[in-house]
Amino acid sequence: MTGGLFIALEGGDGAGKSTHAELLASWLEGLGHAVVRTLEPGGTALGRHIRQILLDPASGDIAPRAEALLYAADKAHHVHSLIRPALARGAIVVSDRYVDSMVAYQGAGRVLDPAEVARVAWWGVEDLRPDLTLLLDVEVTAGLGEIDEPDRLEQAGHDFHERVRQFYLALAAAQPDRYAVIDSRQPKETVAAAIRAAVEPLL
Amino acid sequence: MTGGLFIALEGGDGAGKSTHAELLASWLEGLGHAVVRTLEPGGTALGRHIRQILLDPASGDIAPRAEALLYAADKAHHVHSLIRPALARGAIVVSDRYVDSMVAYQGAGRVLDPAEVARVAWWGVEDLRPDLTLLLDVEVTAGLGEIDEPDRLEQAGHDFHERVRQFYLALAAAQPDRYAVIDSRQPKETVAAAIRAAVEPLL
Repeated sequence: MTGGLFIALEGGDGAGKSTHAELLASWLEGLGHAVVRTLEPGGTALGRHIRQILLDPASGDIAPRAEALLYAADKAHHVHSLIRPALARGAIVVSDRYVDSMVAYQGAGRVLDPAEVARVAWWGVEDLRPDLTLLLDVEVTAGLGEIDEPDRLEQAGHDFHERVRQFYLALAAAQPDRYAVIDSRQPKETVAAAIRAAVEPLL
Repeated sequence: MTGGLFIALEGGDGAGKSTHAELLASWLEGLGHAVVRTLEPGGTALGRHIRQILLDPASGDIAPRAEALLYAADKAHHVHSLIRPALARGAIVVSDRYVDSMVAYQGAGRVLDPAEVARVAWWGVEDLRPDLTLLLDVEVTAGLGEIDEPDRLEQAGHDFHERVRQFYLALAAAQPDRYAVIDSRQPKETVAAAIRAAVEPLL
């Protein structure tokens, strides 16, 4: 359907996605490929404007479905105006977060049904799936730092992030040919080598 | 499910929706009802911010699905933060445009499937249906002014607005108990009286 190659990096905060997106892009450029490195939310001017709304305290308490629709709008525009045109030129697109992030985070809060969030998000992007999703997996305690006796809020935060992690792992398990799960507690160079090994067969 | 009463006004541009929303609200207030008069898009602070994005030339050429998702976000937040709370207090909500507007206009451009747009929009508002939709119907030539020999663009504009009109009429025909179709070429006071006659049985 498209030329080019679409790679998404997913994982919790602190998993090293932006570092490894940069290392991967540099390696691919070194091999002579045209690479477009981008991110969500905020990969386009419209997306940055949407991101501003989501972060602006003046927006008040945003309705959960409105928030999901705003994230979906960011993705829809990102795919339409940046990712698809880049793929059509034959470029390799490396995106720091994509649809799975939205579904994992919005769904893990337990306010919205992940299947419904996924349906809206995939509609927005006209069902454009990455050729490969690199899941940088890290245990939640490692990602959030060591906490000896977590209080109630810390525990809630821990449980939320654990649900995000398990959601990602379940997605990867369901489609092993489209995901590579990489243990990101390993040394940076080991992680980078594992990423290159996952990407190389697709080049 | 809710107390209160939810009335939406729909119709093409120039059909007199804002005038009649005001007349209806005044009449209801005169009868002693608590009335919340509102509009879409832009009935909330978040909605005004979204509307600004949609109108800002810096947003560039917005992807059609992103545009639909932004409109849906406006509606989702409007319902969650303004319409439902007002209904829960027992107020009468009079909204100038609601979900049907979005589906009619986005779908009539023939870029998006109206059924898919409707699915996204109704998900956003958690399927909150108006108790009554007042469709202010006006022939397209009357609404756009008399044009003797329309050029290609005028003809395209005419066809678009005619599709919007027919879409509205089809919705009303499918659910006659939820819609009142009012010929808005009639004198203002005749239209206002027809609106009051349609609303009165619900009070």
